[in-house]
Order: sequence, then C-alpha cells, then structure tokens
Amino acid sequence: MLRIPFEDVKHRLETVLLQEGFTPERAARCALMFTQTSCDGVYSHGLNRFPAFVGFIRKGIIEVNAEPVLTDALGAIERWDGQCGPGNLNATFAMDRAIALSKQYGLGAVALRRTNHWMRAGTYGWQAAEAGCIGICWTNTMPNMPPWGGRESKLGNNPLVLAVPREEGPVVLDIAMTQYSYGKLSTYVLSGDSLPYDGGYDEDGQLTRDPAAIAKSRRPLPIGYWKGSGLALMLDLIAVMLSGGLSTQDIGKLENEHSVSQIFLAFDYEKLPEHSALQQRVNGILNDMKSSLPIEESGRIRYPGESILTTRETNRRLGIPVDETIWDKIAAL
Amino acid sequence: MLRIPFEDVKHRLETVLLQEGFTPERAARCALMFTQTSCDGVYSHGLNRFPAFVGFIRKGIIEVNAEPVLTDALGAIERWDGQCGPGNLNATFAMDRAIALSKQYGLGAVALRRTNHWMRAGTYGWQAAEAGCIGICWTNTMPNMPPWGGRESKLGNNPLVLAVPREEGPVVLDIAMTQYSYGKLSTYVLSGDSLPYDGGYDEDGQLTRDPAAIAKSRRPLPIGYWKGSGLALMLDLIAVMLSGGLSTQDIGKLENEHSVSQIFLAFDYEKLPEHSALQQRVNGILNDMKSSLPIEESGRIRYPGESILTTRETNRRLGIPVDETIWDKIAAL
Repeated sequence: MLRIPFEDVKHRLETVLLQEGFTPERAARCALMFTQTSCDGVYSHGLNRFPAFVGFIRKGIIEVNAEPVLTDALGAIERWDGQCGPGNLNATFAMDRAIALSKQYGLGAVALRRTNHWMRAGTYGWQAAEAGCIGICWTNTMPNMPPWGGRESKLGNNPLVLAVPREEGPVVLDIAMTQYSYGKLSTYVLSGDSLPYDGGYDEDGQLTRDPAAIAKSRRPLPIGYWKGSGLALMLDLIAVMLSGGLSTQDIGKLENEHSVSQIFLAFDYEKLPEHSALQQRVNGILNDMKSSLPIEESGRIRYPGESILTTRETNRRLGIPVDETIWDKIAAL
Repeated sequence: MLRIPFEDVKHRLETVLLQEGFTPERAARCALMFTQTSCDGVYSHGLNRFPAFVGFIRKGIIEVNAEPVLTDALGAIERWDGQCGPGNLNATFAMDRAIALSKQYGLGAVALRRTNHWMRAGTYGWQAAEAGCIGICWTNTMPNMPPWGGRESKLGNNPLVLAVPREEGPVVLDIAMTQYSYGKLSTYVLSGDSLPYDGGYDEDGQLTRDPAAIAKSRRPLPIGYWKGSGLALMLDLIAVMLSGGLSTQDIGKLENEHSVSQIFLAFDYEKLPEHSALQQRVNGILNDMKSSLPIEESGRIRYPGESILTTRETNRRLGIPVDETIWDKIAAL
C-alpha cells in the first residue's frame, strides 16, 4: 500500500479527466471529489472506482460536460434532468440547489433524473451539513437485491443518507439497503474472513456468512429482512414519482447502470431560532448513546461518520493509502 | 374473539372519551382513529391500546382538549407545540398542516414537539397519500433499544413511515427500528412460537430467537444491526433539531413516555405534470417486484400495506375482531 500526498492524487486524476474532455473547472471539481472520498477512507468509491468511472466515459455512458437542466420549478421542490452528466458533479449541483431552496423556503428538495452513479453517497450529506443544513438524500440503483420472500433481484440497494450539522463535525449516516454491499463482500472475500452476521443466501437457499457464496448467488439480505426490502422499494418509488426518471426495474433493462433517479432534501437548520443552543443538546444525545455499557469490555460505541475526521486528518498528513495496482492502472489511463 | 360492527366499536370508544372530557367533535375523531386502526388489523395500536390511552388521560399526561400551537413559521416548514394533547389528534393536525404547506410550496414540513404517542404510525402515511401527497413521518420514543455495540437502551425504536398515493390504494411502509417491536415479542410469547430470525440478546448476551428472553433483557436488535442503530439515532437527532422538543434521552428521564418529538413531510404529488401517467409506472414497479420467483413455492411477495385494504373490507363486513377481555375492559372504563 502506497501513501500518496493529497495534491498528487488529485493532480493525477485531474490530468486523466482533462484528457477525457472535462473542462478544467469540472476536471478540478471531479478530481477533488474522488480524492476527498479516498482521503476520508471510503476507498471503494474513491480511487478504486476511478478506472471504472473512466471506463463509463469511454463507453459514452457519462457525458463529461453535460449539466443538469431545470424541467419543473414547483416552489420549494424542483425537478432537474441530469443529462447523463458525471454523477458526482450532478449530485453536488442538486444538493446545492436544494440548499439554496431551503435558504429561501425553510426546506428545499431537488428530484434529479437521468444522472449517473453519484459515487460516495455520504458526500452530499457532508455538503448539506457544511452549509448549515440537515440533509437527506438517496438514489436508486440497478436491481441488485431480491425483495423479501423472493429469489430474483428486483430491488436496488438504494443508498440513503441522513446528515446533521454540528460544530465539531457533522453526523452523517450513509447506508445501502443490503446488509453488506457487494464491495464489502469482496473485501471479506479478499481477507478470507467470514461475515460476522448472515449476509444473504447461498445457491442452495441457505442463509450464510460466506461472502463468496452470496456474491455468487446474488442474493444479499436486505437490512432488517422485510423492513429493508420495503424501505428499498419506497425509496425507488418516491425517487421515480418525484423525478419522473427511471426506476430500478427500468435501469435493469439497460446494458449498464446509468440514468438513475435521485432525491435531495435540505432543511435550513440555521434559520431555526435556537439552533446554537441546540448544538449542546445534540452533543448530549451523542454522549449519552456512547455511554451505553459496551457489549465487549474494550468496545466503543460510535456515531455514524465519527471516524471520518480522524481518518481524513491522518491521510492528509501521511498521504492517502493507495493500492499500487490501482495507482498503476490510473497512471495507464 | 368477538366480531363487533365498526359503528358499535366507535360508539363505545366515543362514549368513554366524552366521559373523559373530550369535546364531542374531538371524541368522534379520536374514536374513529382507534376504530379504523383495529379495522385495518393493527390491533396493537387500536382497541388493545385504548385502555392504556385512557390510563394516560387519567394520570394527567394527555390533555384531552389541548390543540397544537404554532411557534415558528419558517416558510414551507413550521414548528408546532403539541401542548401534550392526544397524540393521534395532534399528529393528524400536523400532517394536515404539512399537506397544506405542500399544496402551497410543493412540499411542506411540520416539526411537532410536546406531543404524545401517535398510536399507529401508518395512519399519517395513509392520510398524506389520500390527500394526493407522498408522505414521510417519524417519531422519537423513550429509550427502548441499545445502540449497536452497547447493552443499555439509549435509542428509541423511532417508527418511520413512507407512503405514496396510488389509485388502487396507497403503498405505506410503517417500520420501527427494532427488528421486532415489544408488541410483536408479546404476540410470539403468547403463541409459544420462537422468532423466525434472531431478534435480540438474552441476559447472557447471546443472540436469540426466544421472544421472552429478549423482552426480559430489553436488548432487542436494531434492523440491520449497526445500520438501524444509526438510523434510529439520526431520526431522533433530526426530530429534536427541527422541533426543539425532547430527545429519546430526555424522554427516558420522565416517569412515563410523553412529550415526544415528531416530523411530518408531504410532497404534493398531484402538482407534478405527469402524475397520472406515472401511476401506471408505479404499478409496473410493484408488479415487477411481486413477480420475483418466490423462495417458497407457494410464497407471495407483498408490497408494504398490501393486505390492509382486504383486512379493512373483511372487518367492515364481518365486524372488527375484538379480544373479549379487552372489550370488557373498555366497557368498564
């Protein structure tokens, strides 16, 4: 594992994006997002994903300079067509717009259709929180999870983000509706470990902790069984109904995953009369939770996103850990 | 099990509420909600809960004629103080107000503090959907679930509702953040069955399917383990930050569960240009999901709330199933 300085990583990605036809301003923003994601320790959707991202550009799936177009302005909610632009730039734009609407109306929403994979979901939660907003957003995906009681993937794992601002750093929950993402399963396969809890069914229909068996059967478990299955369905329905875009079912008919539908919600927290006083109460809630007697003596109870700031700081200082094979692959792009 | 006609059930509840000091109009609405809940097959928060509801009135916890008061109007989002009124009347009021805001702004939100248990969570999803809106709402509760990695209950199970309108009847997801609610655990204890999946820890800290052991240890599992734990925390944080009301931690310091905080969100779906055309796509998504090859040959895949309309129709026709002991208890109130 190499450790590469933040600016060097960003520069290499930017060079590739410029070569792929991004305008300089867009190349810089897009490269920064991939770099920041890896710097925050979310390698799966940072550098490790970058070669596939460029692959999608070369296949003509991602329109590098396409920008979202407003199709319906309905007050505090707007609908935008992502024009098949880069998912992370589109999503940043959409959350920015939801934040702007929230500053005007108290809360704001953007329903975005025809966009691409937004990479790290939590990014847009951080974005809202850093703008002093409570943020909620989700995306649909291609079918990759069977509904509860079924064998065939008909639902997406539809990542969901909830984020709240906080002086000491936001609290950001970023969860897919599968108990273990396919990325997580691969990590376990590589390490040779079995999953700590049942993660899906094997090809014989038995619940299993064997990550390879689940990756093979394509039958991961939804979080909370029937509950996560229902939640994934609702997130898809709402994304489709508000954006008018493609559903998980529709996306499943495409050759590759693209033209997804997303929802961005922002509440202007700073507009609330006593928001400063509330910050102390927020910390009180977090501290109370963390004070629960741990199951394991040395155990620590964490709030969502708690470790990010430490990881970010370490990687800023020592360089971002980069898999050598990935780094070479990016150099060769 | 008795079967009692809808109107007779409603009449008996109404009589009790009048006796408890409700104005006639409020008694009628409140009795209707309890009756409708049982009629829809959600017995735990219908008739079975009614004696406890009256108990809370007699303890002075529920102010029968208190109505919500607007404290902050911030555009598309408003904050209301529930004044410790009946939770179901307050919640109906709050969702109505969110719907009205959505008709004006495209979407609307109400943050409600100092209210009481709203009984059946799904009610307010149905309410939004029947008004042509997509509805999302949640409540916090007293601490009744340990955070992931902890032994002591610090989080609430914070029920969450997502609902979408549909001509043939809405799709309404109504889920608590525990894999099995305490009510569900009691049902299993009574039937002598074990849970189909691990539902929590026993007093020795082992994962178990024994409902009595979990009820005793008070250590139910969150849905999706760490994911549901994080989600429960976020729902509490957002409810507190937006409403300014009590947190799960604060509620835990009270002698009884009251003064909870709730969020109501409505999106005016009928305002969207092609909402009629979208209805066909919504049905397409549901049908596609239901077409997944079932795990068990005779298995059926259902969407959230699918069985409600059939149950409602049956109970309207044959009478509402009522436990005789409960019915006698209500008669004696």
